[in-house]
Amino acid sequence: MDEQDKGSGTPERLESIDPAFALHRGGKMEISATVPVRDADDLSLAYTPGVARVCTAIAEQPELVNDYTWKSNVVAVVTDGTAVLGLGDIGPEASLPVMEGKAILFKQFGGVDAVPIALDTKDVDEIVETVIRLAPSFGGVNLEDISAPRCFEIERRLQEALDIPIFHDDQHGTAVVTLAALRNAAKLTGRGLGDLRAVISGAGAAGIAIAKILVGAGIGDVVLCDRQGAVHVGRSDLTDVKREIAELTNRGGLSGTLVEVLSGADVFIGVSGGTVPEAAVATMAKDCFIFAMANPDPEVHPEVAHRYAAVVATGRSDFPNQINNVLAFPGIFAGALQVRASRITEGMKIAAADALADLVGDDLSAEEVIPSPFDPRVADAVTKAVAAAARAEGVARR
Amino acid sequence: MDEQDKGSGTPERLESIDPAFALHRGGKMEISATVPVRDADDLSLAYTPGVARVCTAIAEQPELVNDYTWKSNVVAVVTDGTAVLGLGDIGPEASLPVMEGKAILFKQFGGVDAVPIALDTKDVDEIVETVIRLAPSFGGVNLEDISAPRCFEIERRLQEALDIPIFHDDQHGTAVVTLAALRNAAKLTGRGLGDLRAVISGAGAAGIAIAKILVGAGIGDVVLCDRQGAVHVGRSDLTDVKREIAELTNRGGLSGTLVEVLSGADVFIGVSGGTVPEAAVATMAKDCFIFAMANPDPEVHPEVAHRYAAVVATGRSDFPNQINNVLAFPGIFAGALQVRASRITEGMKIAAADALADLVGDDLSAEEVIPSPFDPRVADAVTKAVAAAARAEGVARR
Repeated sequence: MDEQDKGSGTPERLESIDPAFALHRGGKMEISATVPVRDADDLSLAYTPGVARVCTAIAEQPELVNDYTWKSNVVAVVTDGTAVLGLGDIGPEASLPVMEGKAILFKQFGGVDAVPIALDTKDVDEIVETVIRLAPSFGGVNLEDISAPRCFEIERRLQEALDIPIFHDDQHGTAVVTLAALRNAAKLTGRGLGDLRAVISGAGAAGIAIAKILVGAGIGDVVLCDRQGAVHVGRSDLTDVKREIAELTNRGGLSGTLVEVLSGADVFIGVSGGTVPEAAVATMAKDCFIFAMANPDPEVHPEVAHRYAAVVATGRSDFPNQINNVLAFPGIFAGALQVRASRITEGMKIAAADALADLVGDDLSAEEVIPSPFDPRVADAVTKAVAAAARAEGVARR
Repeated sequence: MDEQDKGSGTPERLESIDPAFALHRGGKMEISATVPVRDADDLSLAYTPGVARVCTAIAEQPELVNDYTWKSNVVAVVTDGTAVLGLGDIGPEASLPVMEGKAILFKQFGGVDAVPIALDTKDVDEIVETVIRLAPSFGGVNLEDISAPRCFEIERRLQEALDIPIFHDDQHGTAVVTLAALRNAAKLTGRGLGDLRAVISGAGAAGIAIAKILVGAGIGDVVLCDRQGAVHVGRSDLTDVKREIAELTNRGGLSGTLVEVLSGADVFIGVSGGTVPEAAVATMAKDCFIFAMANPDPEVHPEVAHRYAAVVATGRSDFPNQINNVLAFPGIFAGALQVRASRITEGMKIAAADALADLVGDDLSAEEVIPSPFDPRVADAVTKAVAAAARAEGVARR
């Protein structure tokens, strides 16, 4: 009832009952000129006739577009509004406040310009062809809040069609930060990733990407669970994406429910919502890690998790160890754009995770396996690591 | 040879020989946040969880998107790169410096945010469907540097499909400023628009739009000329757009070349390039007006024009009476967005022209029939006039 009330009424009423509305009045971002436009002389350089010489040069040498326009520093934040936060399919207009929020985080944390592009279509083919047509204007594309499994196909097809970074943050941002936290949790307890068996609850965008990055980083084993339980090669009901994951994961061949496969597991990673019963948590291995990232209600409340786990992380800012994508995406794009990378590789993502993990340094403790989003060193460290990895992997163009 | 040299070489070399390149380094614009993002409290309002309440409210009351995002103040500057300045079809990337220039003029002169969108397609259907899909993110669309006659169909179809302002500036911006200058030229010489017969050289985007607005404003007669000469209903080679214009114009039924129809004309309006022979200019009526707007070379050089004309205008900033679109488009969009107009009507354009003409006031002279682009009163006067006209015409939504 109360939520319903907040969603209706005039702007004046909304703003009187919730400060988020007052803050959002008129939106959260604007364009600024970075060159002077005070007089005819300024105009003659920034606009006609001077601009014509710059246009001509780009027409002759297309790569100059990266030097003489904002293209090489601007990212399209593209959504269709189908999986917005925990709100689901609320449509493109209603998703815009999130896309603007993302855009200002890009700028604030990574120095990257970003433009909200909320599309009036949910058709995969149309989304793909639209983004391809937009690509001349942007140095990269951050896909955001697009529902699974459509998000996987859209990302894959755009990566095949375009030679600029395409990055679905709901997948890879979450995966990078999770890997960073897991590396430090393992370090803290004297183990390596190869010693760990992880169970992921939730086979959507984030769960799939976390499973992939953990495999790529050398985890002992990982079992992904959807609503039907453990994903394994013996199941006949798997989508293409889950079948691919089944072949990469669950080397132990576990089947059964989440509760069943959690028994003896070293790591629980929750990206699903719902609640894991305390009795199931109690069956996990000694010194286990519980990353319960559902917002606002973690799958295992931290108070419960601490009874069994050596390290506890959530998606919330009011508990220690917040798994927050803002630790990753600004620096990942800043690094990729800095070297004009043609794509963002698994190696670049793992480099970002390693840089995040390393930043904790001597402060490493059960309460601090991941830096704060407001640690001023974060974006720079991730940027440098990602740029270096892009060069090492041969996808950098300068 | 020299131009060729300027277009090639490294950024360092380009910047050493032409200050336009140094100015354009890294582009001409950036995004800024208009709300603080300093700490977790800020993030909890601007991003999760606070933003979710704003999203929910918009999902329930879609018009709130205009109150709580930047949508109602942001315009997409859309091109396909086919008719960029006088350079022609140089493609989307090479057009970006012009689109950025346009975007910063929108902000500087009208306070309107604008985003360059250079599309990787020249197909009319694809351009139309792409812009329709982008529309949820923007409060208006400024079409720019799209070649005729494709620009007419694109604009018409977008206006039919969308309920936000769609405005092809190469047409209507030029037309508005031309009308303003013509009104004052007529006033200066004690005539009314109804007393004038105008000849327009060039039946592209600008020529067509000027013809239409002059008819709408009550010109005595106007004869549009393309490369085949005067456009009249008797011609069998006309496109649909020119046929429509033929029915609105040339009530005298003139045929023949530009030079032939110029004889006795009161107004010459050049939007074509090329040169009009002085002998033809000499046949115009006494106290005629010559608006030779081709850049960089006016169809009639002002020195020649002054031998015959009472008022001379050009497209150049180094002669008096510059017909410059920046006098119109920032205020036209600012006014339309301010009242959330569903479209930009002919009445709104004529109101913009009248406001521009009126600003000259007591300064009216043959050397000043139009304000300077840097007159600080311009955008505000146009904005107010356009907003009032939108209300009067019933297209305002607040």
